[in-house]
Amino acid sequence: MVERTRFMLDEEKIPRFWYNIAADLPAGVEQSPPLHPMTHQPLTPPDLAPLFPMALIMQEVSTEREIEIPGPVRDIYTTFRPSPLVRARRLEKALDTPAHIYFKYEGLSPAGSHKPNTAIAQAFYNKEEGIKRIATETGAGQWGSALAAAGAMFGIEVKVYMVRASYNQKPYRRILMETYGASVVASPSMDTESGRAILAQHPDSPGSLGIAISEAVEDTMKRDDTHYSLGSVLNHVMLHQTVIGEESILQMEMAGEEPDVIIACAGGGSNFAGLAFPWVGRTLRGGRKYQVIAVEPLAAPSLTRGKYMYDYGDTAKMAPVAKMYTLGHDFVPEPIHAGGLRYHGMSPLVSLLKHHNLIEARSVHQIPCFQAGVLFARNEGILPAPESTHAIRAAIDVALDCKASGEAKVILFNLSGHGHFDLSAYEAYLSGKLEDYEYPAKEIKEALAHAG
Amino acid sequence: MVERTRFMLDEEKIPRFWYNIAADLPAGVEQSPPLHPMTHQPLTPPDLAPLFPMALIMQEVSTEREIEIPGPVRDIYTTFRPSPLVRARRLEKALDTPAHIYFKYEGLSPAGSHKPNTAIAQAFYNKEEGIKRIATETGAGQWGSALAAAGAMFGIEVKVYMVRASYNQKPYRRILMETYGASVVASPSMDTESGRAILAQHPDSPGSLGIAISEAVEDTMKRDDTHYSLGSVLNHVMLHQTVIGEESILQMEMAGEEPDVIIACAGGGSNFAGLAFPWVGRTLRGGRKYQVIAVEPLAAPSLTRGKYMYDYGDTAKMAPVAKMYTLGHDFVPEPIHAGGLRYHGMSPLVSLLKHHNLIEARSVHQIPCFQAGVLFARNEGILPAPESTHAIRAAIDVALDCKASGEAKVILFNLSGHGHFDLSAYEAYLSGKLEDYEYPAKEIKEALAHAG
Repeated sequence: MVERTRFMLDEEKIPRFWYNIAADLPAGVEQSPPLHPMTHQPLTPPDLAPLFPMALIMQEVSTEREIEIPGPVRDIYTTFRPSPLVRARRLEKALDTPAHIYFKYEGLSPAGSHKPNTAIAQAFYNKEEGIKRIATETGAGQWGSALAAAGAMFGIEVKVYMVRASYNQKPYRRILMETYGASVVASPSMDTESGRAILAQHPDSPGSLGIAISEAVEDTMKRDDTHYSLGSVLNHVMLHQTVIGEESILQMEMAGEEPDVIIACAGGGSNFAGLAFPWVGRTLRGGRKYQVIAVEPLAAPSLTRGKYMYDYGDTAKMAPVAKMYTLGHDFVPEPIHAGGLRYHGMSPLVSLLKHHNLIEARSVHQIPCFQAGVLFARNEGILPAPESTHAIRAAIDVALDCKASGEAKVILFNLSGHGHFDLSAYEAYLSGKLEDYEYPAKEIKEALAHAG
Repeated sequence: MVERTRFMLDEEKIPRFWYNIAADLPAGVEQSPPLHPMTHQPLTPPDLAPLFPMALIMQEVSTEREIEIPGPVRDIYTTFRPSPLVRARRLEKALDTPAHIYFKYEGLSPAGSHKPNTAIAQAFYNKEEGIKRIATETGAGQWGSALAAAGAMFGIEVKVYMVRASYNQKPYRRILMETYGASVVASPSMDTESGRAILAQHPDSPGSLGIAISEAVEDTMKRDDTHYSLGSVLNHVMLHQTVIGEESILQMEMAGEEPDVIIACAGGGSNFAGLAFPWVGRTLRGGRKYQVIAVEPLAAPSLTRGKYMYDYGDTAKMAPVAKMYTLGHDFVPEPIHAGGLRYHGMSPLVSLLKHHNLIEARSVHQIPCFQAGVLFARNEGILPAPESTHAIRAAIDVALDCKASGEAKVILFNLSGHGHFDLSAYEAYLSGKLEDYEYPAKEIKEALAHAG
């Protein structure tokens, strides 16, 4: 008899509803409204209408617990969902730990990460509203490729402003987006006024997520047929990702265990929220408490070293101002390989839970993360994305604590994506060329002085 | 009610036996024994013992219908098997065809293709025989990365001789193998006598699969702790791949349909055999006949333009001599991007079935294959490997024939792997830089003159 290792749900068990944690927030744990970047007044739905379809704007402010997943979205989910829950038996053995380690694997989606969970939903709602074109930014390219694939499926044109440094470093991600039919330009680009202004001053600018957001927003504002799309941070993005956690609840039941510790990496917060919110919701509704850990890079430690305050979502001050943990919108994280975690802020909902100690956060260096990633690959076969190695590192640390204490904890972590497009980072690690960026206390302090 | 799109088997339904088509060959369809490359006498098991573990040698000559899959192999299969069967509903719609198109998707394995099905089995049997180290060759790297991952799981050192042209063109594949812990050298290398001899004459040699095989075999023969491993062509490799077809039979039952047409690409023949042999076996045991099509590149058209005869498996005449369709062991296929299909010969079992008209073969140019691959990616989300696009092209052609004739055929094809490491090929296609290599009649004729 083979021991069960992979827990697959039947297609019929794909959640029919997204879970909205806003419905379960206890008294005293209240959301702060996002503010208009110019007026600093609370944003209203009409303020956001040029950027997003109304269905998403209503999800952004909804306090309904369950929001139905539209049929055409669920149809496409069925091509790669439910994602597997896997017991990492060989990793457990390699660590000689009494802990049981489970991971939810989101890397089997078309774009290789959890990002399609929201990209498909966003493309659908835009299509419903008659939108022909979506502009977005991307750093490492996980988000851009997910939106490019979703756009292809719904017949929506996609324009991606890709941070120039990544555009040059990761040509495969760029070609993947183009293969799906998207137009991709290196940002700053000559396609927008903000891009041209920056290039006039800094012809060799490597770009940044903040600049790319500015270009995508400017592109959107100038055209009637175009909306803007964001792959993390916003409430509706967290919402769409909860299919991960909802499935994991059913799958842990199949495995006959309940997690003691729930772990995910956090950049903007969406893969963390996706796994954790449904579990935290159970606690908030009177269930048992789990240890829930968001893991971030020491090079961009918003939850662990940032300040909980109102700050801009982008460098150029064009995006909404949100109450969140932030390192300051001027803060430019060091070029670690986990490009998806290089964000100065954090999802307001994730920030709120952290502020009220409903979740924990840890920050780690990238070298120990790659070390964990290689150990994982050699035992479990899957090559993790650099972002995901942060969750693996924390899971291994908890498992090693269990080894020392003799506790047989059940650990559940989110393996948010594969690392097939990140092999130059693995090569740097394997050849000893990787650097750890020390906690940049001075830079964060300076950036925070200009925040809010 | 969502229409079913993905058919997932429970882990318990992973086959317990590999299917050996040798048991069902009808009278008059007989295997010809492989010959020793020096003596041209039929090979005996002891001849092969320096290269392979005895368990694999016995599988090579077995006529048992069912060979039990060892528990530890099945344990690892459970981390990525059963693979999904997917109905390509959006592709059907894009083609406006009455045909039903299903694909079996092998790209979710650790190495991203069907290759781990045999790599894990081969690593297991070598480990059982106390082997510490395996030497192999790889072209594009699908096979090398599968064996590297399997070696890591069983604690076996893996040395990969990678064709130099690929080594330089596909650094990500090389780094993937190294991340799994394998040693990779560009072939021809300074590590073997045959490599050094070639480099002395041709310091800039781009290498070939034939040269890399020679190096791996030489490496093996020189060391007591080392065996050799091959990722296609041999009977035991075809055997291990039949888990694909066995699963697909159960999954088509779930879908409530039976295929009329079964399609896979063919280089050495293993992904074709993996899908097709279990279905052909049903026919041979008295069931209905299916149209079974092997699709090969026009740049290496062994089944469609080669000769059925005894020929060497490698250029250097160190590998066994086998009765097969061959373009001649001197034939060097043009550098098409489907590196896994650039082989002068073909699996003897696949060749035998073709020779007796139990299967068909088609050959296609690479540009229409990439065209099919891009259409597939934009509709189904999955980026196919260049090899797999050959199967997609044939499936689309059959579906378009159905559109013309009004027939609602059921098509099943094998999507053997993803193309995450082949994006430079897609870029060449998208930018119009791809070339089609015309059927090189003269070269094949010349090569065949030296064959056998």
